[in-house]
Amino acid sequence: MLLLTSIEDMVAWTRATRREGLSIGLVPTMGYLHEGHLTLMRTAKAACDRVVVSIFVNPMQFGVGEDFEEYPRDLSRDQALAASVGVDVIFAPTVRGMYPNGFASAVEVQGLTDGLCGAARPGHFRGVTTVVCKLLNIVAPDNAYFGQKDAQQVAVIRRMVLDLNMLLTVVTVPIVREADGLALSSRNVYLSPEDRQAALVLFRALTAAQAAVEAGERDATVLRRLMIELIAQEPRAEVDYVAIVDNLNLQPLEKLEGACLLALAVRFGKTRLIDNLVVEV
Amino acid sequence: MLLLTSIEDMVAWTRATRREGLSIGLVPTMGYLHEGHLTLMRTAKAACDRVVVSIFVNPMQFGVGEDFEEYPRDLSRDQALAASVGVDVIFAPTVRGMYPNGFASAVEVQGLTDGLCGAARPGHFRGVTTVVCKLLNIVAPDNAYFGQKDAQQVAVIRRMVLDLNMLLTVVTVPIVREADGLALSSRNVYLSPEDRQAALVLFRALTAAQAAVEAGERDATVLRRLMIELIAQEPRAEVDYVAIVDNLNLQPLEKLEGACLLALAVRFGKTRLIDNLVVEV
Repeated sequence: MLLLTSIEDMVAWTRATRREGLSIGLVPTMGYLHEGHLTLMRTAKAACDRVVVSIFVNPMQFGVGEDFEEYPRDLSRDQALAASVGVDVIFAPTVRGMYPNGFASAVEVQGLTDGLCGAARPGHFRGVTTVVCKLLNIVAPDNAYFGQKDAQQVAVIRRMVLDLNMLLTVVTVPIVREADGLALSSRNVYLSPEDRQAALVLFRALTAAQAAVEAGERDATVLRRLMIELIAQEPRAEVDYVAIVDNLNLQPLEKLEGACLLALAVRFGKTRLIDNLVVEV
Repeated sequence: MLLLTSIEDMVAWTRATRREGLSIGLVPTMGYLHEGHLTLMRTAKAACDRVVVSIFVNPMQFGVGEDFEEYPRDLSRDQALAASVGVDVIFAPTVRGMYPNGFASAVEVQGLTDGLCGAARPGHFRGVTTVVCKLLNIVAPDNAYFGQKDAQQVAVIRRMVLDLNMLLTVVTVPIVREADGLALSSRNVYLSPEDRQAALVLFRALTAAQAAVEAGERDATVLRRLMIELIAQEPRAEVDYVAIVDNLNLQPLEKLEGACLLALAVRFGKTRLIDNLVVEV
């Protein structure tokens, strides 16, 4: 497995691989890989001749007071994990390489980025779309793989790829959970044992709402209240948002219809966790 | 010569041409082609196996009250001209094709777009960078050709291509002028005979400043005053801006040093013309 840190080397690899007529899958990550990431890589490996995993903790998508500095990093552990599932290249560029002196450009998606995580994290998705655009240009993949855990990110990136006519397929891979239901996240390492236990309330709230939908409830206000009240029973949890939106355009729903995204963000101390479920009505 | 109007057809052509290992040159235009555009095409033809000319009057780069509706269009004349210099494909997409329902993305370059034409045309360069990003993704050229006439546009697009790691070379082609010095522009057709004559003041002001620089003048204030006073002698002309900036970062200069861009925009009635010269000090 190759480890490339310079953009020039990565571009040279991309060009050579393209010239050989081989297909490329890209899994963009911020590293500190977990089973969710590995599932993305296995999915990419099954479909593409070559798989590139990018590891870049992107300062542009962190706001003031967010956890850019503390975000967990462990490149040698990440290398071993990626190698174990047959990844061909880890691309780990430097911040200076990605954002050289004079850098002045940005890609943004409007509307889709206003609510949910975008409301609490102004500028976050602008950072995400800009860095993903750059990575997609550098690696020129046939397919790019993203986890459904970041549901809004997936919707925003799909919109960007469509709008900017980027010639690739965005593949969304289902959330991977611990046995007890907690969605995998690199940020789970921040949790104290008590918060780790309390964090189960996210999935509990989502599955309770899902059960209510399956029992016939269609009123988003009722379903949101159900989730909020359930989370309120957990004193360590502080709700950031609990939302029920259209799964494509992310607009809030009053009555559930079609593919509906139940999404929430909850804080445990300084740690903010997100989770979601899609229900088809 | 092919005329393609659907993005899907253009992408299919791009992919087939790439598979054959042929190089592609793209000349993005808004049509109503003149000798300046033809020079871009000839330059592209000399360097690339295949040349694509896009013709798209991009609504996103026109402001309220600007001339989007009136902008001159003549596709059959453009086809004949492009064919005469050996262009392989005209890509003339529809507005609906380029901006489908739900379109929500934008590419922008900050800083470089604040002054000069950006000051008078808020949102203009955001429209330019967005549409050029789309065209570059659709046609995937090795080289893209732009005229020095739109000096700020060239600087902004170079910045975008660099920042977003777009894998192509931006080629700038010198301004083509009428025998009497007027820079070619599709908007010259708006000019009355009197305004057409008066418009010579743009190049006269630029060459007067250039002569002063060659005679040793380095003070930007003096040089700007020289140009402004010269233009003021032409009663039909109304200055929009007269600027002396660094040719790379477009920052205003006090003392001329290195590659300096003398740039101006002048109105004749409703018609706004731009012109520029680069002087090396």
